[in-house]
Amino acid sequence: MPETRTRRSLPEQLLLLIDLGRWIPIAALVGILAGSASALLLVSLNYATAMREQHVWLILLLAPAGWVMAQMYRRFGASVEAGNNLVLEQTHNPTAVIPVRMTPLILIGTFITHLFGGSAGREGTAIQTGASLADQLSRPLGLAPHERRILLMAGISAGFASVFGTPLAGAVFGIEVLAIGTLSYDAIAPCFMAAFVGDLVTRAWHVQHKIYRVSETPAMSITGVGYSMIAGAAFGLAGMGFARLTHAIARTAKKHIPNPTLRPVVGGFIVTTAVFAIGTTYTLKYLGLGIPTIVASFNSKLPVYDFAAKGLFTAITLGTGFKGGEVTPLFYIGSTLGNALSHIIPLPSSLLAAMGFVAVFAGAANTPIASTLMAVELFGAEAGAYAGIACVLSYLFSGHTGIYNAQRVGRTKH
Amino acid sequence: MPETRTRRSLPEQLLLLIDLGRWIPIAALVGILAGSASALLLVSLNYATAMREQHVWLILLLAPAGWVMAQMYRRFGASVEAGNNLVLEQTHNPTAVIPVRMTPLILIGTFITHLFGGSAGREGTAIQTGASLADQLSRPLGLAPHERRILLMAGISAGFASVFGTPLAGAVFGIEVLAIGTLSYDAIAPCFMAAFVGDLVTRAWHVQHKIYRVSETPAMSITGVGYSMIAGAAFGLAGMGFARLTHAIARTAKKHIPNPTLRPVVGGFIVTTAVFAIGTTYTLKYLGLGIPTIVASFNSKLPVYDFAAKGLFTAITLGTGFKGGEVTPLFYIGSTLGNALSHIIPLPSSLLAAMGFVAVFAGAANTPIASTLMAVELFGAEAGAYAGIACVLSYLFSGHTGIYNAQRVGRTKH
Repeated sequence: MPETRTRRSLPEQLLLLIDLGRWIPIAALVGILAGSASALLLVSLNYATAMREQHVWLILLLAPAGWVMAQMYRRFGASVEAGNNLVLEQTHNPTAVIPVRMTPLILIGTFITHLFGGSAGREGTAIQTGASLADQLSRPLGLAPHERRILLMAGISAGFASVFGTPLAGAVFGIEVLAIGTLSYDAIAPCFMAAFVGDLVTRAWHVQHKIYRVSETPAMSITGVGYSMIAGAAFGLAGMGFARLTHAIARTAKKHIPNPTLRPVVGGFIVTTAVFAIGTTYTLKYLGLGIPTIVASFNSKLPVYDFAAKGLFTAITLGTGFKGGEVTPLFYIGSTLGNALSHIIPLPSSLLAAMGFVAVFAGAANTPIASTLMAVELFGAEAGAYAGIACVLSYLFSGHTGIYNAQRVGRTKH
Repeated sequence: MPETRTRRSLPEQLLLLIDLGRWIPIAALVGILAGSASALLLVSLNYATAMREQHVWLILLLAPAGWVMAQMYRRFGASVEAGNNLVLEQTHNPTAVIPVRMTPLILIGTFITHLFGGSAGREGTAIQTGASLADQLSRPLGLAPHERRILLMAGISAGFASVFGTPLAGAVFGIEVLAIGTLSYDAIAPCFMAAFVGDLVTRAWHVQHKIYRVSETPAMSITGVGYSMIAGAAFGLAGMGFARLTHAIARTAKKHIPNPTLRPVVGGFIVTTAVFAIGTTYTLKYLGLGIPTIVASFNSKLPVYDFAAKGLFTAITLGTGFKGGEVTPLFYIGSTLGNALSHIIPLPSSLLAAMGFVAVFAGAANTPIASTLMAVELFGAEAGAYAGIACVLSYLFSGHTGIYNAQRVGRTKH
């Protein structure tokens, strides 16, 4: 938090009180805005998912819907198309306030993606709504660039916390996601405040979060540590594979389809064709958020290829320009990969699903501590210990590129 | 982890595997050494505490025991007298291997301190045994200075994790305690490995950790966030007050008692006099680790001045050169202060005790994330959310000096 020269003479705690007296209301306001946007997002996604499940023919319209979405971004959203990377870029180097239109555009884009059967997440949307709404306070409050940076971090924290119902993970995510390998605490209080308020506001809008249950967690043992490390390495390679595949598809699409409004059309066409050519019995589970499959990965044995199929559907969806984000698909990839690993790693499959849920994300987003906190918040401290080891190993094995191109390398991993 | 020039051409994951293949056995060995030392420490402290409780007259010998301890350090321990600060200093700037004698000296010094009624902790001992034993591997393994740094961090993690039975908190403590306001991940895998193995080894020696139960945690609410912030600020001021008092007493003792072997004699004399002058009925609870009072702070209403009395007894004990560390007294100060705050803050007293337990420590050691993880590991995720907010506020309000003088300021707090 800022410190001006004239205030240097005051005792440290008084300066802090002045700073907090200013930042707490701002962070609370960020939390209210981001939490409300997340509530709207979650309600709209529930609606979109229910509609798509009832009317499977909607998936036939994914290609034209992609065209509409791309037209919408072309006409109104050129300045905010970069999405999460714009948010991270502005947080690193605050130059211009993020246009408020980012919020409606990403909400509509995500709704379209999910209604018509794209495979995508929602954290990207929550981060963008949280950060862009937060940033609107910059001008009225007359914030300096380094204060805008704190505001954006609080917006990221509030968006993440509220969309997943995990305030501790959200608070730390906002300070951890900016750089690989380091973490600094200068925005820690606004991030915590915004994250907790954001989560409470989403819940106050009567939005419920899914509860996942780990049916069995053995007492930690030296073999448990070893198995968690091996699983973590696998989760990290999966996270890296997914990030690279998505980037590769995006690069290929850019190269071969110069017209950006046509890219989601092609992507939508590929997804639709794959869904109906392979058969909806097998493929519907890979569309949208995929929550039922994530739940199933905690309760029953699933096909071992589910994680790869989900990764492919998501990489095509997001790599060709659909909206929503990567994180819920990463949860899906991780929990189904964990489920699959239970064939060869002698840990309970629901525990491996929980470990994968957070650890593939930890590797792909390079956020091992936020992911460990998320495990603790969602699955409890016992499973969180296994997950923590897996998150660290996944983080190490996922390489130096992740799902966010604008993330910087603060310190190499090894 | 290190990377030599000749290996640059190998793929990243292969390099990582080579590094991990080297560091995992080393970190496991650090965990075995540190966990065994912690087990010995905990068993010896159980014995010392039971003896002192049975034979209250032992407290009359605190002053002469202090002289014996100081003579021991003067004759054999001049090079390791700086204790935790030497460990942190060597981690920042690895110059010379820490002598192995640090381990027996701190174990004996801590045993003497607790047997004769000093008020002290045990984490300082665990960190010193963990780090000094770890450091003995430096020469046989031919480690370079930057590798010694990783080894020492792993030793700190393993010592902390094993002495408190909290592997996640220990793992993060080793990377968080070095600097205020930043955290870097370069030693994250060895720290996690050493912490988990250390904890398992201590448990394998049949050492049990005390279990604290939060009897009631209300669902998080906006008032809950606010109360946690207020309590956190109070915890931070208490942590700062304790750190300053201890440093002030140490400075005063150094100034007025030039002979270092006489300082603990004077400190011991003051403690003994206070204990018997005020009356053992009132004062015995402030000696040693004080675990029964910490447990009581979760279950019943305690005198509101307990935290201050414990702080004073501990500052005199440690400020005049007795051994053991500050952290368990900080848990005591925090949990009794939380208990006292329940008179004015409308949260359950056992929840406030849990919040204070970790948050005063978070402020005094400048380790908000390790402390939050500790709360989750000891009290569960629900109470951990309240504790996390309190830890962050405590961290902010505790100023830029803490209990560890050798800690550096990575980034100012505000």
